[in-house]
Order: sequence, then structure tokens, then C-alpha cells
Amino acid sequence: MYRTRTCGELRLADINQTVTLAGWVQRIRKMGGMTFIDLRDRYGITQLAFTQGTTAFDQANNLGREYVLQVTGKVIERQSKNPQLPTGEIEIEVESLNVLNPALTPPFTIENDTDGGDDIRMRYRYLDLRRECVRKNLELRHKMAFEVRRYLDEQGFLEVETPVLVNSTPEGARDFVVPSRMNPGTFYALPQSPQTLKQLLMVSGFDRYFQIAKCFRDEDLRADRQPEFTQIDCEMSFVEQEDILNMFEGMTRHLFKTILNIDLPQLPRMTWADAMKYYGSDKPDTRFEMTFVELHDLFHKAEEQKPENERFSVFANAAYIGGICAKGQAVYTRKQLDALTDFVRRPQVGAKGMVYARVEQDGTVKSSVDKFYTQEVLQQMAQTMKAEKGDLILILSGDDAMKTRKQLSELRLEMARQMGLRDPKKFSCLWVVDFPMYEWSDEEQRLMAMHHPFTSPKPEDIPLLDTDPASVRANAYDMVINGVEVGGGSIRIHDALLQEKIFEVLGFTPEQAQTKFGFLMNAFKYGAPPHGGLAYGLDRVVSLFAGLDSIRDCIAFPKNNQGKDVMLGAPSVIDQIQLDELQISVRQENK
Amino acid sequence: MYRTRTCGELRLADINQTVTLAGWVQRIRKMGGMTFIDLRDRYGITQLAFTQGTTAFDQANNLGREYVLQVTGKVIERQSKNPQLPTGEIEIEVESLNVLNPALTPPFTIENDTDGGDDIRMRYRYLDLRRECVRKNLELRHKMAFEVRRYLDEQGFLEVETPVLVNSTPEGARDFVVPSRMNPGTFYALPQSPQTLKQLLMVSGFDRYFQIAKCFRDEDLRADRQPEFTQIDCEMSFVEQEDILNMFEGMTRHLFKTILNIDLPQLPRMTWADAMKYYGSDKPDTRFEMTFVELHDLFHKAEEQKPENERFSVFANAAYIGGICAKGQAVYTRKQLDALTDFVRRPQVGAKGMVYARVEQDGTVKSSVDKFYTQEVLQQMAQTMKAEKGDLILILSGDDAMKTRKQLSELRLEMARQMGLRDPKKFSCLWVVDFPMYEWSDEEQRLMAMHHPFTSPKPEDIPLLDTDPASVRANAYDMVINGVEVGGGSIRIHDALLQEKIFEVLGFTPEQAQTKFGFLMNAFKYGAPPHGGLAYGLDRVVSLFAGLDSIRDCIAFPKNNQGKDVMLGAPSVIDQIQLDELQISVRQENK
Repeated sequence: MYRTRTCGELRLADINQTVTLAGWVQRIRKMGGMTFIDLRDRYGITQLAFTQGTTAFDQANNLGREYVLQVTGKVIERQSKNPQLPTGEIEIEVESLNVLNPALTPPFTIENDTDGGDDIRMRYRYLDLRRECVRKNLELRHKMAFEVRRYLDEQGFLEVETPVLVNSTPEGARDFVVPSRMNPGTFYALPQSPQTLKQLLMVSGFDRYFQIAKCFRDEDLRADRQPEFTQIDCEMSFVEQEDILNMFEGMTRHLFKTILNIDLPQLPRMTWADAMKYYGSDKPDTRFEMTFVELHDLFHKAEEQKPENERFSVFANAAYIGGICAKGQAVYTRKQLDALTDFVRRPQVGAKGMVYARVEQDGTVKSSVDKFYTQEVLQQMAQTMKAEKGDLILILSGDDAMKTRKQLSELRLEMARQMGLRDPKKFSCLWVVDFPMYEWSDEEQRLMAMHHPFTSPKPEDIPLLDTDPASVRANAYDMVINGVEVGGGSIRIHDALLQEKIFEVLGFTPEQAQTKFGFLMNAFKYGAPPHGGLAYGLDRVVSLFAGLDSIRDCIAFPKNNQGKDVMLGAPSVIDQIQLDELQISVRQENK
Repeated sequence: MYRTRTCGELRLADINQTVTLAGWVQRIRKMGGMTFIDLRDRYGITQLAFTQGTTAFDQANNLGREYVLQVTGKVIERQSKNPQLPTGEIEIEVESLNVLNPALTPPFTIENDTDGGDDIRMRYRYLDLRRECVRKNLELRHKMAFEVRRYLDEQGFLEVETPVLVNSTPEGARDFVVPSRMNPGTFYALPQSPQTLKQLLMVSGFDRYFQIAKCFRDEDLRADRQPEFTQIDCEMSFVEQEDILNMFEGMTRHLFKTILNIDLPQLPRMTWADAMKYYGSDKPDTRFEMTFVELHDLFHKAEEQKPENERFSVFANAAYIGGICAKGQAVYTRKQLDALTDFVRRPQVGAKGMVYARVEQDGTVKSSVDKFYTQEVLQQMAQTMKAEKGDLILILSGDDAMKTRKQLSELRLEMARQMGLRDPKKFSCLWVVDFPMYEWSDEEQRLMAMHHPFTSPKPEDIPLLDTDPASVRANAYDMVINGVEVGGGSIRIHDALLQEKIFEVLGFTPEQAQTKFGFLMNAFKYGAPPHGGLAYGLDRVVSLFAGLDSIRDCIAFPKNNQGKDVMLGAPSVIDQIQLDELQISVRQENK
């Protein structure tokens, strides 16, 4: 061993001990007759002191940042202590210094507050990972995965590794594929999730399965997507929805307690319908209220009492009118309100405009639609909104209730951001339940499975499959923390006949269903237990716990938005000999 | 929850309780007025009793094997107890029965001793996994992985996930590749191991890293190879070989204790040179002795004392003559000895013949080469071999010492198998150390890295790099259990200049070395710590602990020798639209 102690552990109690440390040069300060070096390893920073006249002093003055050193010396009490540093009361009076490896000057500073931009940090990710703030995220990730395993092991779950080289799945996102050399012309696919395999494990009687599994999706990447990502994938047999919610609420509570020392209250449950009605989102950020109030009836009644030519056509024709009340924000200036209007008009949000109203200190309501409504109507509106003196009311309306709610959701989140209500250190978790089975796809012009086609409908809604499939609710649930969907799952169908029915509603012929999902439907014929499960996005949970904006910062070697690892230079061209062995060709235009 | 208890937990103490169980029908026995069903779940088997005249009785008589049931009833004491079964003292007097799912008759029996062949079991792997003997292996695998993580976490290791979509590596086995849609004409590769990434994590200061990682090799499959396999991959900084051996000897001891309740003695260390000399193998099976005795000098001295025309040319011209002594096996018949001769002559072994000698009860030595040697020479030989009355001596010779030793190793293992010395319940672990840096490749006509090109030579052997590279020893080590290499690793080079030198000996030009390993060598210039590590094959360790012949039985969904998953039907043809998006073509002959 090159060291007797680490750079993070020495304290006053260790004084007079002779120790050997090893680590990297964080900082060198030359103070005339003394030179000080901050030596860094994973465990901390320890100050080294070199006195003029010693060999070590001369050596120390010739070092640079990030040199790798081994030093031996005596632990002494520091004259000027550094209370910021756990080791700040001591330093090492260095007797001998051994340069284990010199270092070129790194292309950016190895500090939490670095001068390196995103690109260069990714190219030199091995140096970026030296920064404490990045390393801490990966330490958190390790701890999170370990505590997940500890909890699930205690609950009798078995971690089973499912294969990475599987078959292309016909539904869902695009697969990455792997040409087979031994079976030319055929391809493996990388799994988008172990969904079907974990269901087969339930058919096998594994009873309680989990896996922290790499999953893959070849999609165009957005800010918070990676082509490979990690899921905490779980499945249980002989359970109902309630059992799964309780089990994984327990896991979430375990993680909050062991990692953040937070005692999580019991998780509220919200139906999907309520989430859409009050938050305009199936993943509501419930760290703050500002819930939607529907104003359609109120304004329509007012409109009806007016002569036709005095009507406010925007509201009069709207299928949905809803508002949020921003507490104490009547101080918003016209400029700020115009900026909010611009925000909701951005193509990403897509609203046509925004109506606002302030409740003044004298109780009157001043709005951007004063000329259309009497003070009485505006007062009723304020009352409905539970707005008080000093509050700001923001209203959106539109032809399509669902779309307008989503726009209002964006406005709510933006307003909360401006009001500082989206505190990353505050956590609000809930279950969203009773998702619809299907959603209409404009693109495909058919009903699509909202979760996936193996999701079980609520038993009481099964008759609706024939009459009104769009209204059928699923035994599906999501866990939402701070407006992020961290996990989701469902009770699965275990009845082959019901599964066939669901495929039929999805527009598959029996032959298509057999071709696409035959092996699973076949397995169900040999005694499938009732089962269900869920999957958490580990990257998302870690980034939430770490208070990060992006999942990228909790991944050791992430890919950029073009799916590239710029450090490794992947993907890259391969040898012709490899292509020949695989019996595939790259099309001419790409050579 | 569909049950209040599991099928494995009820005992006499639970009598008179009303319980609900769920599980699969293992067996139905109709005994006139009574019908008994063995109900099975992951936790065990419980006997259900149905009495004539009840509704449940009529239902029970219409069930088949593998039906999924939910039953409620009272726990009662069994009249004829079954001491083989943990639940054998009780049974359930069933009050109500609910068929959760019917089942087709499975294509093979769900018993440890099944009637199903390999092929059908793999096609219906989800049914095969219902067999207790298969499920137990996966339970062991879960426990093994969990205990590995527990030990390493306690030792301060961080589990870091490295990417699965990486770059093709130029050395080693063949890579699986993944065409990139976003970057047409380029490919990711699946990692053969996280070797370079874990070394980069050491450059990053992660200090102690591990990962239970999926690795991939596109090689022609032999019995004990899978295209995807799992490694326990570890790396440490600021360590010497001794530190790594101690750390992972500790892990191995932890696994033996927690999983098998075996207190492992301290692991012996054997140099690679001794392993080859005494066992003819770098992974000696040390559960038994039967070590090699070199007889070259003895026989050559005897030959020299004879006239030329009386010489035994096979020995006289051999570069190597070595024997093993099979204790008490002088009883071997001529027929058995001929079979052994046939064994060593098989092309897989490749010896030309075998010489044998028995030490008779009167002390004389009778051999297959009696006409060439005096009894005195044979007595000396027996003495050298430490052979006693009743022992059998088997001797191989050849031109090439290394090749002959490997043949003798095969003979030793076969003989031990016949003698019942290879008991899967007995464990013998050791470290093999001081591997050579290089081995000569007849195929490539150059020295190749025996471990990999990042392995550090022993400091005292560095001068030999210029004069006699083939004799340079590496700081490399393998852990061997029962003749299986379960893990191996090395101290790595952390000095960029030494690394360049090693590449030079391997025959790379500086430009080639830069192209192939540039990013790692570049990283080393920014302050690489001394580091080293190792990797265990999880599949192999689990199969050893489980006493299995093949790693396949400890993998949930293994592939066959053609790299196929016959249950999933992977690999398979993919849609033209996928090929078009990837801008690759399958060559005509494979369409």
C-alpha cells in the first residue's frame, strides 16, 4: 500500500503520528520560507507543509497541479486552522516526498466551480470526474443502488439478470440492433426494458423479482434522455395494485431515510383525472399549491347575460377556461406579465394568449379583461379562485380542454419557478393512479396503449372495452416526485383471453398478435399467476436526490445529444474485415 | 394480496389457523373419499386436503398439473407426516378453492429429475425455471451478487456503471457491434470488459471501484462460454499486488462463509512456473495431489549407460519426461490402461503414447517398458515418484516440455475423475502468481500480452524487456478454485513511458499505439496513480458454488452453442425499415 492513511481522515487526535499519504496536488502556495500543498484524494484534502532548507521543500516548489504524490511526515497542529475543512486543524510536516506521476496542466480547473465548458469537460471526463461535485453524484448513485438492493433483498426479492442480447420488440421506441455473425442476416436487439422477461419470470414462479438493469432506446435525444439508461425493474406475483403501491412506497421511504435522513410522510394518491384537472399534468409538481380553478361556468354565465356584441369571444367560445392564483404576486409589472404572455405563446407551450387579474389592496379586481366584465363578475371570479388582496390571477382558455390544461400547467410551473417555489431541497412525492388504458394517437389514427399492451384494465371497466374503450381505466400507477415521473407500472393481464381482447381493441388481428407477442401469450397458457410491477428510472431518482437539473451529471460516462461519447470517440468506423464477418454493408453514401 | 401465507412456512405451531395460499398444482392424488394436492410456490410445497362432499372436492378433481390456485382453509395436523418436507407435519383442510389460471399440460415434468431434454427445456425455459434445482441456482446467484456488494461496499468500493455502448477495441476477442442511426456508417461496440474505463476511473481518483458488469464476446461458443457473461470487475489505486491479493482473498473468504458456511484457510500462492511444473496447468486443481515428478534426468542417465541399440528411443529423445503417481491404483487392468492410453492420444490431448508402471505387493515394479530398463532403474523411478506398494505410475514424454506438461495435466485430471477425487462439494482455492508478461503466438508470429497490454512487469524484470522479453514476469495473478480460473488481474502500468515500451515489445509502432490506445495513454499524462485490479467471472463462481458442470445452469435465459435464445427466437430478421434507418444492408446471400 502506498499510504497509511487517506487525505480525509486526520484530526487533532492524530498529532505526532508519522503518516504516509498519497494523492493529487490540488493547490500550491509558496509563502517565502514555507510552501503549502493541498493534497487531494477521494476522501478529502490534507494540507502539506514544506520548510525551506529541506529536500522536500525544493521538490515541492517544482511540482504542478494534479501531480500524483506520496508523502511521509508528521501530523502537526495548524497555526491558522481552516474550519471549512474536516482536516482543517492539522497539517503534515513533510519529511519525504515521492512523485508517483507528473501531470500535464489540465485543460480546465479541477474545482467545483470550474472554468471548463461542457464540451471540454466531456472530452476529458476522467478529469471532470475528479471534481468533488461530480464524484459526489456517483457516490450517491452507488449508495442509492445499494440501498435499493438491501431493501428489496430484505423483502424477499431476487435479483435476476436478464439478457442484453434479445429480440427486437414490435411496439414502443426504436431498438438498437446487433448483427449476428454466427447467424448472418439476423440481428439481436438491445432491450428497451426487461418487461416480457420479468413477466416470464412470474410465470416461472419467481414470485418477487428485481433487477437494476441497463436499458436502451434509439431515440432522438432530448436534454434528459440517454441512449442507455438504468432502471430499477421490479415484478411481484399474487398481488393487487395496493400491494405494489405499499411495497414501493416502503422502498421510497427507505431511500429518503437512509440517504437524505428525511422521514417521508405517507404518499398521497391522486387519480389521473384529478391530476389533469388540478395540475394539467400526469406528473404534478406538488411542492406547491397553485392548483387550477375552472372558470368556464362562471364566465359563460356572465357571457350569456350580455348582449351578443359585448361578448369576449375568446372566453365565450372556449371549451375550457382555467386559472391559477399566484399568492402575493399582484406586484407583477406590466412588463413581467407581458413576458409571461410571451412564455405561454412560445410554440413549445402553444397558447394564444393569457388573461390576468390583480386583487388590489382595496379589494377591487383589476384585470386585462375589465372592459368585458363587470366588477361583480370579476369579484365572483376572484372568490372562486380564493384570491385575496395582493394576489395575481392568471387565466388560459382554449378549444381543447386537455391541451389548454397542459398549457396552464407550463404556466404554473414557470410562475412557481419565478416565485422560488421549486426548491430542489424540498421533496413532494405522490402516486398518480387510475390512468386510462388507451390514448388516441393522431399520428396512427388509432387507440394506443398508454402504458403498454400487457396492462390490466380495472375489472369494473372491462365491459366498457366493447362500448367505450377510450374511457377504460387501467390498473396503472406512476410515482411522481417534484413533478418528475420517477417510476411507473401496472398490474398485468394474466388471462390469455383478456389479453387477446386488449390486442383486438388495439387493432391487431389475432395473427398479428400471435406473431408479435406469441411467446408471451403462449407462456400464459401454462399457468400464469396474477402479477404486476413497476420500474423506476435510477438516473432520474439519483438526479432528484442530488438536486441536479440533468441526469447526465449522475452518469459516469454519459453520451451527448448526438449519442456520442466524445472521450472514447464512440461510435466509430469499424474495419472492413468486421463488416465482412458480419456479412453486412454500410451503404455507399456513408462511406 | 392473494394469499396470507406462503407454501413454505406453515408448521405444527400454525394449527387451527385459517390461511389463504396461492401457487401451482405440483401433484394430485385421488384416494377415494379424499383428494390431496401438493401446492407449490417459490417457498415450498404444502399439502391440500379435500374431503368428498364439499364443493372444493369436486373442483379439485377437475384440476390438472400446473394450474394456478388460490385456496382458503384451516391448518390441520397430518395423519401421515412427511419428514422430507419442512411443511410435512401439516396440511390444509380446504374450504374454498379459486382457480386463478388453468394450465396446459407442460411438455416436460416440473421435477428436479425431469423427463425433458435440453432443447425443449430451453424452448420452454419459463417452465424449466419452475424446477427447484434450477431456481436454487438463481437464488444462489442473487445471494452471491448481494454478498459481493456488501463486502466491497464495506471496504469502501464504489459501484460505478460504465457504458455498454462503447468503442471497438483493437486487441482481444471479437466485438459485437451496434450500428448507429444518428451517425450513419459508424458503430458502437459492446464491451468485452470495462478494463480501460475502470483505469480511467482510477485516473479520476475513484480509488476503489467495482461493478458487476455484463460483458460481451463474439466468439465461437464452447461448452462453457456465453456471448454475454457477467464479471465482478474491480480496481484499486495506490496499491501493490499484495494489497489486491489480500482484499480479494478476504472477499472470497466472505463468500464461502456467508453462502456455504465454510471457513476458508489462507490461500496458498503458487508461481506460474511451479503451477506448470507440478500441474502442467496455470489453473491447477489442487483438491488432490498427484503432482508431476520429472523423470528426464533419471531416464537419460539410464539411457547413457546402455549401448545405443538397446535404447528406448521415445525417452532417449524426449525433451521432457514426467509422471504422476495414482495412489492404490495398481489394480488397474490392462483394458483400463489401454483406455487411458486412448484418452491421451485423442486429438484434444495429443500425446503419442503413455508409459505405465505398477508397484506390486512384493515391491517389484512392473512396467510397460520392462524390456528397456533394469529393475534397478525402475525401482529408482518408483522411489523418485514416491510410489508405494499398490500404486500406479503413469508417464508421458515429448519433444516440447510445455506441450507434454499440458497432456500430462489432462491425464492427471482424467485419472482424478476416475478415482473420484474431483468432489464438487470440496473446495481448494489458491492464487497463481508471477505470470509471464508475454506468450509467443505461432499464429501471429510475435509475442502477445498474456494478460493484456496494460499489465505491469515486475520492476526487477524491466531490464529484461530489451534483452529477453519472453522471460519477463508480470505483476499478474489468477485466483483458481478446483481447477477453474475464477478471477484474474494485474497491477497496471501507470507510467506513460513504460507503457510505450511495452507496446514497442508487442510490435506496435508509436503511431499504431497512439491510434489504438491514445485516449488511455493521454489520460495517463494527467496524473495517473499506481493502480491494479482484477475481475471474477460471476457465472463461473456461482456454478462452482452450486456444483454445476456448466455455467448455463446458473443463467436465467442462456443462449445455446449457436448463440441463439430459442425461447425468444433471437437473433432474428429485422424489418427493412430498420435497416434503412441504420443505412446498412444485409448482403444478398443472406436474405
